[in-house]
Amino acid sequence: MKKIGVVLGGCGVMDGAEIHESVFTLLAIDRAGAKAVCLAPNVPQMHVVNHATGQEATGERRNVLEESARIARGEIKDLKTVKAADLDALVFPGGYGAAKNLCDFAVKGGDCTVQPEVARLVKEMRAAGKPMGFICIAPAIAAKVLGVEHHVQVTIGTDAGTAQKLVGMGARHVSCAVSEIAVDQANKVVTTAAYMLAQRISEVADGIDKLIKKLVEMA
Amino acid sequence: MKKIGVVLGGCGVMDGAEIHESVFTLLAIDRAGAKAVCLAPNVPQMHVVNHATGQEATGERRNVLEESARIARGEIKDLKTVKAADLDALVFPGGYGAAKNLCDFAVKGGDCTVQPEVARLVKEMRAAGKPMGFICIAPAIAAKVLGVEHHVQVTIGTDAGTAQKLVGMGARHVSCAVSEIAVDQANKVVTTAAYMLAQRISEVADGIDKLIKKLVEMA
Repeated sequence: MKKIGVVLGGCGVMDGAEIHESVFTLLAIDRAGAKAVCLAPNVPQMHVVNHATGQEATGERRNVLEESARIARGEIKDLKTVKAADLDALVFPGGYGAAKNLCDFAVKGGDCTVQPEVARLVKEMRAAGKPMGFICIAPAIAAKVLGVEHHVQVTIGTDAGTAQKLVGMGARHVSCAVSEIAVDQANKVVTTAAYMLAQRISEVADGIDKLIKKLVEMA
Repeated sequence: MKKIGVVLGGCGVMDGAEIHESVFTLLAIDRAGAKAVCLAPNVPQMHVVNHATGQEATGERRNVLEESARIARGEIKDLKTVKAADLDALVFPGGYGAAKNLCDFAVKGGDCTVQPEVARLVKEMRAAGKPMGFICIAPAIAAKVLGVEHHVQVTIGTDAGTAQKLVGMGARHVSCAVSEIAVDQANKVVTTAAYMLAQRISEVADGIDKLIKKLVEMA
């Protein structure tokens, strides 16, 4: 059974992994006959946002691995213990966690830094010729790690401002409808816009289902 | 478009709403052509559990409405502001939140108390002849509120100990496979076992999809 690493960046769209995208990723992996291996870095979240008000909950501190474990029902590994050799493919759901905790693109745009263990694993997967998927805003991670050297091609949907920032990091951007995927065959990178574009939860599920089917096929 | 209330009890299987069950509920409602209206009581959680270790995070305090809002992406209402007249149907995903925050069945078993606004809304829906769905351990709420007077029929799968506790509250229990639903036509109550039985995430999705289709059909 192929093992697909799922990198989570917390639990909740405003400060962590987007929950719907993460769950549809896990479902699609199961339905594709593969096994999900949930991973998260054991680091503090950038901050905590009260999702009922949208305001920052100042003074609260949460840990990315512990909050990601909510989505994984406790079945999760510290990302730093995992190597490319342990996996057949790797996928990143979106949400602000991908752009606040796995990298700091939400704050620094094109000048962002990727969390070191995340960058290490992405580079290892690329070197091993294993496929990767990036959902929603997570293509920012692909752009930063694989942009300058590999000119990775990604989609974040149709948002011109965000697309321009990815191009500024060396990536190529292709516009793409919400239920479709962009495939960079040379780099084995698959992307889909999900909540960067979706108006309905079922559109998110459809795009992620396609992405995972392609990823498992390439693995 | 039919409005389906979705009552969330936090965010995370060990101390809140089971995340996969909640997301599949929202997806199935959208795919059935209905509209989800997320609701949660504005009350403190019973406690907080570190989902990476399974241990209680003593000293941490979280609010059920604020944590539920993570699953709802901020689109959530305080349950006390909602009446049966605002909804066509009501559904409760499971997770320990249903048995710790929406009622205290996890601690007190058959002697449990249902959170007053939750009990009020369930009684209103029953009185209005509107259908309700209860997933995983949430049938404990149905048993407590609709057991003695209405002898509601439910399933929590095949766990004899838990089933016996529901029967002790006046409910009737029927064993049911994970991808199937139990339908109490007289009370318009639909139940499915989900993670009370499921070995795979796709089994959870299948059972909930059936439950929501039935619920929307009855609404």
